[in-house]
Amino acid sequence: MTRSAIRAELSVLTMSGILEAKPRVGYSYCHTVQLDQFRQKLANITVRDVSSLPVVINENESVYDGIVAMFLENVGSLIVLSNGRLAGIVSRKDIIKASMGHLDVQNVPIGLIMTRMPNLHMAYPTDNIYNAAKRLIDHGVDSLPVVEKKEKAGDVFYEVIGRLTKTTVTKLFVEVLEQTNAEA
Amino acid sequence: MTRSAIRAELSVLTMSGILEAKPRVGYSYCHTVQLDQFRQKLANITVRDVSSLPVVINENESVYDGIVAMFLENVGSLIVLSNGRLAGIVSRKDIIKASMGHLDVQNVPIGLIMTRMPNLHMAYPTDNIYNAAKRLIDHGVDSLPVVEKKEKAGDVFYEVIGRLTKTTVTKLFVEVLEQTNAEA
Repeated sequence: MTRSAIRAELSVLTMSGILEAKPRVGYSYCHTVQLDQFRQKLANITVRDVSSLPVVINENESVYDGIVAMFLENVGSLIVLSNGRLAGIVSRKDIIKASMGHLDVQNVPIGLIMTRMPNLHMAYPTDNIYNAAKRLIDHGVDSLPVVEKKEKAGDVFYEVIGRLTKTTVTKLFVEVLEQTNAEA
Repeated sequence: MTRSAIRAELSVLTMSGILEAKPRVGYSYCHTVQLDQFRQKLANITVRDVSSLPVVINENESVYDGIVAMFLENVGSLIVLSNGRLAGIVSRKDIIKASMGHLDVQNVPIGLIMTRMPNLHMAYPTDNIYNAAKRLIDHGVDSLPVVEKKEKAGDVFYEVIGRLTKTTVTKLFVEVLEQTNAEA
């Protein structure tokens, strides 16, 4: 489901709220049903629906390369890969720590300063957005790699297919309310 | 309005959705009214309701002091004051730029690397959360100082009373959906 599909669905919900408001006789529990439908719709948005493209770097590249990538891509964290598999994540905080520690950023590999597997918080594309957003808050992180669990010859690893950040959630929040304002 | 007051209000809305679902005869536009009420409630949350305490630093303190404050308070940006008035904002990005530029972080004042008034995006306590969240997205910033405009002897300035970040919005998003899940 794309963002525009979400918008369309939210719109249809409201429309149906109007269309169903037909003359009616007797008991009517319509309020509750409609209310739940809208909020359930929000709760049913999945990580796949809203996640953005991952910005990745190889664990052997330098911290300096990482900083350049962060500025070029304008992201607050990089997903670090090892042989194409999720190996870790590096945040601006990690970069600041590294430069304060007088590391030779040109020569030290980014893999040395990353938060490493298995100490990572991740999201699956099928997670609902509520769970993923709650994970961001509960663990105090700005970004989650969106992954798919794979197995090859008994070896379990994670393939990175996207990322979900507080920016993603804030954007979604704005879009949902935008929809509301447009209909008001 | 506090977070718990918001929760209570959202809860009352749902309750009233149930309570109003009484036997009724004839035309019923109840769906639309209820639906709009919930979303309007979201749209009516103000910056004052959800903003957090500002983390500030004086423009004469060093970049190094700023880095320490960021880590101690675990924030991604600092609000910079000059004579108690809003002077600028410093983000982790600014800090990384400064350390890459081989600045003497111990001696250079933070005022030198901040984004300076009047190039700042701000929020007022009475702004609704939609407008503030949209400002975060539209201007690509992580944080807005929450300010009150003051005037003293013809001199206009801003007093800092809080801050609003993507974390604030993400938390609110989670709380609203938590409410939904609890009622489901």
